[in-house]
Parts: sequence; structure tokens; C-alpha cells
Amino acid sequence: MTSLEEIRAAATRLAPYINRTPLLESPFINERLGGRLLLKAESLQKTGSFKFRGATNRIAQLTPAEREGGVVAWSSGNHAQGVALAAKLHHVAATIVMPADAPEAKIHGTEAAGATLVLYDRARESREEIGTKIAEEKGAIIIPPFDDPHIIAGQGTTGLEALIQAAEYDAQPDLFLAPCSGGGLSSGCSVALAALSPQTKVIVAEPEHYGDTGASLAAGEIREIVPGSPSLCDALMQPRPGLLTFPLLVKNGATGVTVSDAAVKDAMRLAFHEFRLVAEPGGAAALAAVVTGLISLEGRTAIVVLSGGNVDADLFARILSE
Amino acid sequence: MTSLEEIRAAATRLAPYINRTPLLESPFINERLGGRLLLKAESLQKTGSFKFRGATNRIAQLTPAEREGGVVAWSSGNHAQGVALAAKLHHVAATIVMPADAPEAKIHGTEAAGATLVLYDRARESREEIGTKIAEEKGAIIIPPFDDPHIIAGQGTTGLEALIQAAEYDAQPDLFLAPCSGGGLSSGCSVALAALSPQTKVIVAEPEHYGDTGASLAAGEIREIVPGSPSLCDALMQPRPGLLTFPLLVKNGATGVTVSDAAVKDAMRLAFHEFRLVAEPGGAAALAAVVTGLISLEGRTAIVVLSGGNVDADLFARILSE
Repeated sequence: MTSLEEIRAAATRLAPYINRTPLLESPFINERLGGRLLLKAESLQKTGSFKFRGATNRIAQLTPAEREGGVVAWSSGNHAQGVALAAKLHHVAATIVMPADAPEAKIHGTEAAGATLVLYDRARESREEIGTKIAEEKGAIIIPPFDDPHIIAGQGTTGLEALIQAAEYDAQPDLFLAPCSGGGLSSGCSVALAALSPQTKVIVAEPEHYGDTGASLAAGEIREIVPGSPSLCDALMQPRPGLLTFPLLVKNGATGVTVSDAAVKDAMRLAFHEFRLVAEPGGAAALAAVVTGLISLEGRTAIVVLSGGNVDADLFARILSE
Repeated sequence: MTSLEEIRAAATRLAPYINRTPLLESPFINERLGGRLLLKAESLQKTGSFKFRGATNRIAQLTPAEREGGVVAWSSGNHAQGVALAAKLHHVAATIVMPADAPEAKIHGTEAAGATLVLYDRARESREEIGTKIAEEKGAIIIPPFDDPHIIAGQGTTGLEALIQAAEYDAQPDLFLAPCSGGGLSSGCSVALAALSPQTKVIVAEPEHYGDTGASLAAGEIREIVPGSPSLCDALMQPRPGLLTFPLLVKNGATGVTVSDAAVKDAMRLAFHEFRLVAEPGGAAALAAVVTGLISLEGRTAIVVLSGGNVDADLFARILSE
């Protein structure tokens, strides 16, 4: 199981590559919520999401022989970009399997990093099958989106960094909220929190119809949702938690909430107006849980991760004007 | 004249109040520009611009007697919000004189901080006269937008902070670019740079038709522009450099460039797509000088300040879709 030591080692490994993203605060929002909201703006990470952390931590540890065969990954877009850039910076070839209907911003970002792109039909094809076949043909290493100890440790550096920054602001977080798909980010962060700030409660935020992790945490065992429902949160449509991430979330006492598309849009507008940040829908899920009052901050301090900012300009403009 | 020691003292004074804004980098932009662009995202400062730094540094040093009479300031909007919030956090009453045609985001932000708002007609009335009259009537202290040593030292902490962050990234800046109106930000930063990184060349970016500081620096004496031309950069329409700011810029060898509205829009779109940042037009002026190639980064490293992010949603959406 991923340990604090592995997260610390990952933080040292990542330091030359990542943007140190800020922990932001707005006195107006604090006043409105009756508590203290510390927003970890991971949308400002290179490639526009936290995924670059895990991908870099994994790819930096490839052996010279493994580097030769390159890497392959499948992703709705943020892991794709993270892997593509991490591979480029480590001079490793990358092949990325992405749904053909992924946001243009994410397809563009993956191509810009020089990766070979393979698009598939989200409704009819299996990305795992396509990716596994490519890995076999090319002798490439699969970089999984979340179920990998190095990926989890890399994403966990987000939580470690936020805790250090909160201490600089003399803030003791009662809550830690992060958007959740497969659980790499939240489980990694939960390890750092359990070790360094055990009083902080971890809450994962998922979109309506995709509350598999919350349901699994409530049941004490992995539950799967039926995929196919629409959601604005293209990055958070994973139907079940990971085999490595879920036990960490259980061990560290995490719980889950789900947020509606309307709440996510509210959070995106608030991020624009009050924090001057560009949030993608899935990236704003945890912020949505707080600003809609689903999770009350009354008298409490929360670290909230804004996990990604890769949203197409036309969708962003439309949501701003709604 | 403002010294490095005053800027360091200001940084200590501001630490409990400000957001530590990030220094961001994009490998894709670096590749495109052939150099290294370190973007100091001061749009993420509380109230959405660097102005909160100077205002806090000034208001924190009011005597108890001065606090009683409150403060008054005039501003196109960013200084207004900075003063309003700094006053609120120090429990001091604030009256703000703003043009009636200021962006809604800026009027809203000033009101949200609980300041008394006085709107005036930019074309027919003098904000200095209105503000001075209020100061006399209320016994209030005037907080000038730039020509004040405490304001200059406060804004200069932006440059000090960016230099410390650049060192953490092992970057040695050849250039430092900042948007310029009255010169508070650029002159304050130039003091920190001259002391700590004397090889760094300071360049101020102004909008077309408002290149008074650049023209003054070229002439070696204060030159004034004829106001009245339209500009997208509502925050940068000052007709002449300040009496305290200009000598600092001269002493520290600054030069100026002007950027078109079209270049500013390009920079705003690039900030959105590549950095997931919301930039207001004036805030993007220095970035515009770099991304349009007016100032080449070929083989060079530049710290570029994105100084503000207070832009109305409809204008932002329109620029994104152009």
C-alpha cells in the first residue's frame, strides 16, 4: 500500500518538472460560506490537470530497457495529456488511446506533446482492449490512469503540497475534498492526510449517476454503476473505484458525495468570477459540493482541489453566459 | 526612493493577507517561443490583481488616528477593489471613486468589500477633485494608486516573490515584463530586480495610444499622452508616469513597448488555452508583447507578470469565440 514515504519521494522526483500550484483563498467566499475555503488550483498544473504528477512519477521510474519500447495509455483526456508530456520530457515514445468525442482541448494537448493518438468510439469499443493490443505489439509499458502505486503516489503529492501550503497560512483543515473518478488523486492524498493531518476528513466528489466510489465506501465493498448516463463531467465517468485506490480510501475513512451538472456549472462560474480560474466540469466537482452547501463549511476549514481546467472555449463561454 | 529593504519589510507585512501567486510555465509555449516564459499569475491575487498588495502595505501602516477618518481612493477598478478589501480587513472605512463605465466585475468586487462607492463620468468629471473633496469632508486619508512609497514597495513584492520562485525553478531571468499604467508595479519590481538580479532587463508594456511611460523613458523626462483614444485595456489608461515611479524606472534602466488590442486579445486566449488563466485586457499586456514576438524570448528567460483578471464574463466569452 502507498505510504507517506513514497509520496515524499515522489514530491522530490517531481520537483524539477511540475508547476507548484497555488492554494488560493477569497475573503468574500469565506464570508459567504461561514468558513475557510482553501482552493488548490491544480488546473494550473502543466497539461492543465493533476494527472501530469502521477504520469511523471511513473515514467521517471522506467528502466532504460522499458523506455525503449515506449508507453501506452488510455484516457478521456487528462491522463492522456499528462502521460504525453511526461513521456516527451523523458524522451520516451507515447501512444494514447482516447475517445473520439473527448474535448478538443484535450485532444489538442495530447497531440501538442507529440504523442501518437488512437481515437476510439466510447459507445462501441473497449479502450482497454485497444491499449493492451498496442502494448503487446510495440512492447510498450502500460501507464494506467489510477491503479498503480507510482501513479497514486504522484497524485498524492497534490495533497502533501496543499498541506504544506495550508500550514504556511496557519490553517488546519477539517475537510479535504477532491473530484473522484478512479480514485488516484483522492486515495493518494488520503495517505498524506492520514499521516500528517489525521483530523482531516476526506470527501470524494463524483457526478450524479457516477457515484460508484461513494456508494462503494458506504457499502464497504466495490460497487459498480451502470454506465451510459450523460454527465457534463467527461473526466469523471469511471464506473467503479480501483482495486488499489479503493482500499486506501476505506483505510483512511473517506466518504463520498455526488453533485449535479447544475451545481458543477455554478462552481465553474464561481471559479471564474471569484478566483479568475478556468475550471473544467469534472475539475469543479469538489468545489460544487461546497459552494452549493451540500458540504457545509460553517465554522470549518476545507482544502478543495480544483483538479483540472481543460474545457473547450465554446462550452466555457456558454456556461459563463447561462 | 523605495529600497529593497522596504520591499522586504512589505513582504513580511503582507504575508498573512495575500495569496502566494504561482509562477507558471508551459513546455509547449516555451518550445514555441524558443525560450523560457515564467508567468507570474497575479490575477490570482485576492481581488484579482496585484493592487491588493500595495493597498494592504499602505493601510497596514495607518496610525490609529488616521484609521478613524477612513480612507478614500480613485481608480478604474483594480486599485478600488484592492483598497476596499485591505480597508475591510483592517476595519477601516473606505470610500472609492470609480468611473461609471468601469467593468461590472470591478464595481461588484468593490461593493462586495463593503466600500462606499462614488461613480463619476470619465469624460466630464475629475476623479482627483471628487476624491480630494471627500478626503477633506471626512478627514479621510487618500490612498493613491501608484505615487506613494508604501504602494510602490507593496507592488514591488510581486517582483521579489517572482525572483524567489524563479530561483526555485533554477531559472535566471534575462527579462522582466509587466503591464504599466502609473508605474507602481513596474517601478517597485525594478527596485527588487536591480538589487537581486541586476542582469535582468525591465520592460514595461502599455496599450497603443497610452505609451506615455515608454515615451518618457526614451526621452529621459516625463511625457504625457493625449487621453481619449479607445483601448481595451481599461486598467492602463493613465496619461503620464508618476513623479515617484518614473525616477525609479529611469534609475533601473527600464524601457517600454506598446501592444495593440488585437495582441492583447491573442494573449488572453493563450492564457485561457495554455495556462487555464482568466486575464483581463490590461493584465495581459506584457504577455501580449511576448506571445506576439514583439519581445523575442529566443534563447532567453523572462518573468512576465499577468497583473489582473477582472474581466466581465460577456467580454471574456466574446474574446474567446473571436
